[in-house]
Amino acid sequence: MNEQIGVGMVGHAFMGAVHSQAWRNAHRFFDLPLVPRLSVLGGRDEARTRAAADKYGWADVETDWAALVRRDDVQVVDICTPGDTHCDIAVAALEAGKHVLCEKPLANSVAEAEKMAAAAEAAAARGVRSMVAFNYRRVPALALARRLVADGRIGEVRHVRAVYLQDWLSDPASPLTWRLDREKAGSGALGDLGAHIVDAAQFVTGLTITGVSALTETFTTTRPDGAGGTGEVTVDDAALFLARFDGGAVGSFEATRYALGRKNAMRLEVNGSRGSLAFDFESMNELQFFDGDAPGAEAGFRRVLVTEGDHPYVGAWWPPGHLLGYEHTFVHEVVDLVGAIAAGTDPAPSFADGLRVQRVLAAVEDSAAAGSWQSVPA
Amino acid sequence: MNEQIGVGMVGHAFMGAVHSQAWRNAHRFFDLPLVPRLSVLGGRDEARTRAAADKYGWADVETDWAALVRRDDVQVVDICTPGDTHCDIAVAALEAGKHVLCEKPLANSVAEAEKMAAAAEAAAARGVRSMVAFNYRRVPALALARRLVADGRIGEVRHVRAVYLQDWLSDPASPLTWRLDREKAGSGALGDLGAHIVDAAQFVTGLTITGVSALTETFTTTRPDGAGGTGEVTVDDAALFLARFDGGAVGSFEATRYALGRKNAMRLEVNGSRGSLAFDFESMNELQFFDGDAPGAEAGFRRVLVTEGDHPYVGAWWPPGHLLGYEHTFVHEVVDLVGAIAAGTDPAPSFADGLRVQRVLAAVEDSAAAGSWQSVPA
Amino acid sequence: MNEQIGVGMVGHAFMGAVHSQAWRNAHRFFDLPLVPRLSVLGGRDEARTRAAADKYGWADVETDWAALVRRDDVQVVDICTPGDTHCDIAVAALEAGKHVLCEKPLANSVAEAEKMAAAAEAAAARGVRSMVAFNYRRVPALALARRLVADGRIGEVRHVRAVYLQDWLSDPASPLTWRLDREKAGSGALGDLGAHIVDAAQFVTGLTITGVSALTETFTTTRPDGAGGTGEVTVDDAALFLARFDGGAVGSFEATRYALGRKNAMRLEVNGSRGSLAFDFESMNELQFFDGDAPGAEAGFRRVLVTEGDHPYVGAWWPPGHLLGYEHTFVHEVVDLVGAIAAGTDPAPSFADGLRVQRVLAAVEDSAAAGSWQSVPA
Amino acid sequence: MNEQIGVGMVGHAFMGAVHSQAWRNAHRFFDLPLVPRLSVLGGRDEARTRAAADKYGWADVETDWAALVRRDDVQVVDICTPGDTHCDIAVAALEAGKHVLCEKPLANSVAEAEKMAAAAEAAAARGVRSMVAFNYRRVPALALARRLVADGRIGEVRHVRAVYLQDWLSDPASPLTWRLDREKAGSGALGDLGAHIVDAAQFVTGLTITGVSALTETFTTTRPDGAGGTGEVTVDDAALFLARFDGGAVGSFEATRYALGRKNAMRLEVNGSRGSLAFDFESMNELQFFDGDAPGAEAGFRRVLVTEGDHPYVGAWWPPGHLLGYEHTFVHEVVDLVGAIAAGTDPAPSFADGLRVQRVLAAVEDSAAAGSWQSVPA
Repeated sequence: MNEQIGVGMVGHAFMGAVHSQAWRNAHRFFDLPLVPRLSVLGGRDEARTRAAADKYGWADVETDWAALVRRDDVQVVDICTPGDTHCDIAVAALEAGKHVLCEKPLANSVAEAEKMAAAAEAAAARGVRSMVAFNYRRVPALALARRLVADGRIGEVRHVRAVYLQDWLSDPASPLTWRLDREKAGSGALGDLGAHIVDAAQFVTGLTITGVSALTETFTTTRPDGAGGTGEVTVDDAALFLARFDGGAVGSFEATRYALGRKNAMRLEVNGSRGSLAFDFESMNELQFFDGDAPGAEAGFRRVLVTEGDHPYVGAWWPPGHLLGYEHTFVHEVVDLVGAIAAGTDPAPSFADGLRVQRVLAAVEDSAAAGSWQSVPA
Repeated sequence: MNEQIGVGMVGHAFMGAVHSQAWRNAHRFFDLPLVPRLSVLGGRDEARTRAAADKYGWADVETDWAALVRRDDVQVVDICTPGDTHCDIAVAALEAGKHVLCEKPLANSVAEAEKMAAAAEAAAARGVRSMVAFNYRRVPALALARRLVADGRIGEVRHVRAVYLQDWLSDPASPLTWRLDREKAGSGALGDLGAHIVDAAQFVTGLTITGVSALTETFTTTRPDGAGGTGEVTVDDAALFLARFDGGAVGSFEATRYALGRKNAMRLEVNGSRGSLAFDFESMNELQFFDGDAPGAEAGFRRVLVTEGDHPYVGAWWPPGHLLGYEHTFVHEVVDLVGAIAAGTDPAPSFADGLRVQRVLAAVEDSAAAGSWQSVPA
Repeated sequence: MNEQIGVGMVGHAFMGAVHSQAWRNAHRFFDLPLVPRLSVLGGRDEARTRAAADKYGWADVETDWAALVRRDDVQVVDICTPGDTHCDIAVAALEAGKHVLCEKPLANSVAEAEKMAAAAEAAAARGVRSMVAFNYRRVPALALARRLVADGRIGEVRHVRAVYLQDWLSDPASPLTWRLDREKAGSGALGDLGAHIVDAAQFVTGLTITGVSALTETFTTTRPDGAGGTGEVTVDDAALFLARFDGGAVGSFEATRYALGRKNAMRLEVNGSRGSLAFDFESMNELQFFDGDAPGAEAGFRRVLVTEGDHPYVGAWWPPGHLLGYEHTFVHEVVDLVGAIAAGTDPAPSFADGLRVQRVLAAVEDSAAAGSWQSVPA
Repeated sequence: MNEQIGVGMVGHAFMGAVHSQAWRNAHRFFDLPLVPRLSVLGGRDEARTRAAADKYGWADVETDWAALVRRDDVQVVDICTPGDTHCDIAVAALEAGKHVLCEKPLANSVAEAEKMAAAAEAAAARGVRSMVAFNYRRVPALALARRLVADGRIGEVRHVRAVYLQDWLSDPASPLTWRLDREKAGSGALGDLGAHIVDAAQFVTGLTITGVSALTETFTTTRPDGAGGTGEVTVDDAALFLARFDGGAVGSFEATRYALGRKNAMRLEVNGSRGSLAFDFESMNELQFFDGDAPGAEAGFRRVLVTEGDHPYVGAWWPPGHLLGYEHTFVHEVVDLVGAIAAGTDPAPSFADGLRVQRVLAAVEDSAAAGSWQSVPA
């Protein structure tokens, strides 16, 4: 078996569960140059962390992340905590010479993200790698979309149409969680969902958002606090914005947790001069492709079932038509990160990419507050 | 047979053809109190107008619309010309005591629309009716959507998501037409397509747009003029805007002729506190309805095939599952207009409704120019 | 205006209504060499026939079909009655030198169909034309499917999968009608729905069914007779059969009025060695086409919106994306029949084609009764 | 951690890979009473088996399945080999007191299946459990379908419509494999794909197939043997049959590997007196449900995204809208089998269920050969 690489992960809620599954299984399907060893799981409460470690297969636990990032059996630090802790943990890990995988959004502010991107750049000079966990890049259908755009199959991009629709806050009786607290989460639907579609749009098109015009809304301003009282919601429930990209394309974005009936509708459509692409995560194994070069009488959006051996990442899995699920995108993340570490290259998306997304999010908030167009710093 | 009502129609291009079909056939399916008589067709070129009259079944022709609106065998004037002539014809017809059906957008400017709305209001006091031809209100699926919202089936509206996507300008070699000339058309995709989704969104939700933030874009600024040279495109190719509605809902709108592969994708989604609705004109006989009151394990967007006898307008047509098409929406328009004339009531959408749409379009253009939020005058 | 051709139609129920619409409007969109004149409508009850004639635009009425077929102002006889009268009317009309359009199924028995086919053949020798009204051949999407098969775009046909699903008998309280009476209707779902998919499958593939294995079922054997009592259902509620085609393809067919939730799901899928096609009448403006020649990573069923000017029949109608409906298929039928009459050619489907369908239906009933494979006479 | 249970698995191709994933991960998501230990992997070639064991996480290897089933560290024997070996391995394992999970179809003949069912029944009396791996029962959407039928939500079943369409043999140059060899595989599409839809139809409806009428076809009778020559295909490429169920329902089934463009289209539709259900594995996270009790104007097939916490199996996984994939069905299989072992109950589907499927497959082959209806022995 190949050499091992030790992983320390901080956080063991939803993201911790799915990252564990990825670390534990990636080498069972992909020929990894380094085999992940689940060395240590970090969490604040020892008993709960120990239970999670047993459940998810981690060898040891730490209640102090600062100790975790210094351990000799940890070569990669995986950050699965709320956004307010990303900066401190990532910078400490990078400075300790540990490769870092950090959940998105990269940070709760542009200032933090800048600090992290600088630390990542400095670390890269020493051969230490970092990556932000925009897992949707590793949906095979979106990776295929990226490939088709890069190959010129849709020509010059004119339109981007991206929404990320969920509905779990539609019920005003849903309680407060850390995700509704600006101190913890940075923002609401904007950072949680909007960050994904900003990254996906830039990834698939290869273009950069240069300016935005936005509105944000909080439909329900107080919610049960879980302790018999109520508390204030301090983040947006929905964020909508228009955008311009370098090269002349225009786009529309929307992130909300109030679209009743839409469970995880992360959707992206791109119209170009030669073709169009459309994706919906609720049908994540499919890519809709309109080939403008087809004879007119035969043209139409074709539903490509992205389960063929020559589709991105798919060859390692099952025969055509045997679907992959949500968690597989995280396996692909591990595959690419470990591959880059072994190859001595910088994986994508970098912390610099994460910073660029953060700047878009900040411009969205500024625009919504000012009621005017905001350019996004390069 | 019931008493007849004489119709004079000005214009005989695309809209003229479909309006003719509606005037000629409405009483074959619906029990109309007054049977339309296709008295006279107006057009500038006598020979071409005569040919169109023969083809579409009009008894006589006029090359001067002013003469047409004064004829004794004309009780209804139907305006199917480009937007720059709407105001003059409509006002003259109303002043001559003729009921008016006017194609959308109502006018090329707010000033014209205000004049028309004032004329319509004055005429209504004399029992003369007027209606603007937002035919999508008479798609059975959208009429059903309106009914479901009005019945409270989706609760309080939170989100509106509307696009109208076509692709016929994707090819930069497509020639100039009057639709690309600001003098004739007023605006581009905004007035042609955007007007429809603004009206449809306000119709289905029963809400009013109070403010917008917009961008417009012309991707191809010069085109072949059909005479061997090139000419300037003076209208938008695409218009995107965010909106707020009275009552707190937020919305996103996009109109474009550059969405390659989308042929007539007039789409509307509304998310409320109890349910959601989604519509796409490319599947115009269907309404997607998410009933939030259904048990969680059984909930899902249901595809209602809007072809049942108790669906709006459908009872007059075929058995369930036997689809209607584009032209039927115009038949329904005639049915409702003639019904209102006979009943002595004001049909909807009124010229005042058309003016409200015009004010939204104007605010969109102002916002795009200024780069800032624009409120829409009440 | 072109010369006229007089039409006499027998029957004024559902089929009569839709045929009237076709006769009345075909020349408004298509450049017909002969313009249909709606001369006379036949029906047994004079008052009801007169009312229908007024509603649908027929100039005169006859209560005796034998008189109707002899009238000088009738050059075409259109038969829209239940199946038990088809043979007598058609043969008389043909013998009187009148062109005939006959609703499907051609007859209630093979013997009648043979008589009709013989009469049609004899009449053709005298320049008298006949056609059976399998209107689904004139759905633009199915005409396009036929063209793609004929052009070799799907290669050699291997599989045919055809169903025609309705649900209007699901409720056991639905009353008896002539459609449930073997004397009138010949058979149940088999002749009403199954005939359509047999014809469509043979039309699209260009192949002939050579043998079948079948089952039929009547789920509800007695129903309210509308007079306070109950009566016996003497036809099948559902008919299912397997088939072999000349050339080696195999097929599966099902016709039922008990598929709850399926309103008019006339579906056809054909798999060939180079591609596949799929159609569903509930989305009648779409054809799904899988092009096996496309690069593997880009292949998928494409949804062709069959509304382009170069699609069959579509050029006469509206711009791309503006849908057609059920009734348009009958307009196309009139266009092709009148065109053939003017051109002096035999239109399709001929009575011989209708006889071939009838032989398949008979083999299905024989197979269901015998519990064994039945070959279909050539 | 809970007590362990040792697993020995025979076979390490496609099924071996996916079963390994299930054994390795089930306890990471579900609270299993016994934690699977991947004790030993069986295969004929030691080096290849060792490589597979390392890849998939098995502790040891055996090249002799007879030795494997006797090992003390094996309490469960999992049979992932071609059908010709199922009977011998399963009977030996059961006699050795080992619980057995056996891939489908249960055997290559009714005689073998009877022997296996008898062995299973005898073993059950001694507390030894057995289960046949019809994994599609554990697709959450199909488990939900079963629950809805059992709860009476679709009423009395009238129609079953099941197809399993693949296309990997469409290319005549595809080589011979064991799956095309009757000695190894028993039959072709019939046993490979048809077995799944027979089981799924009986599982979802709770009904039993009592008789069939069938045809089978081999489109390509010789193929490259991989050694420069050609060999004979001795199994069916496609199998189609009609069926009757106890209780009066009728059904249509088709299994083929020649449906170009269909990758893994395992589809099931059931129409009942109160509602209907439809499923397609290519959209495996969705169930289409038509609720006949809904008001007519609101009725339609609803797309239930089967990713809610109260859907079968789903609570152990991710939030709503985060899809599961093919392999998860095998995890659920392990969960149910291990749960039954721990609880001392017999899991489903039993070997007796597998035998019933086998009898249907045999009747299909008999009917196809005889050209007549065949009843299926109870």
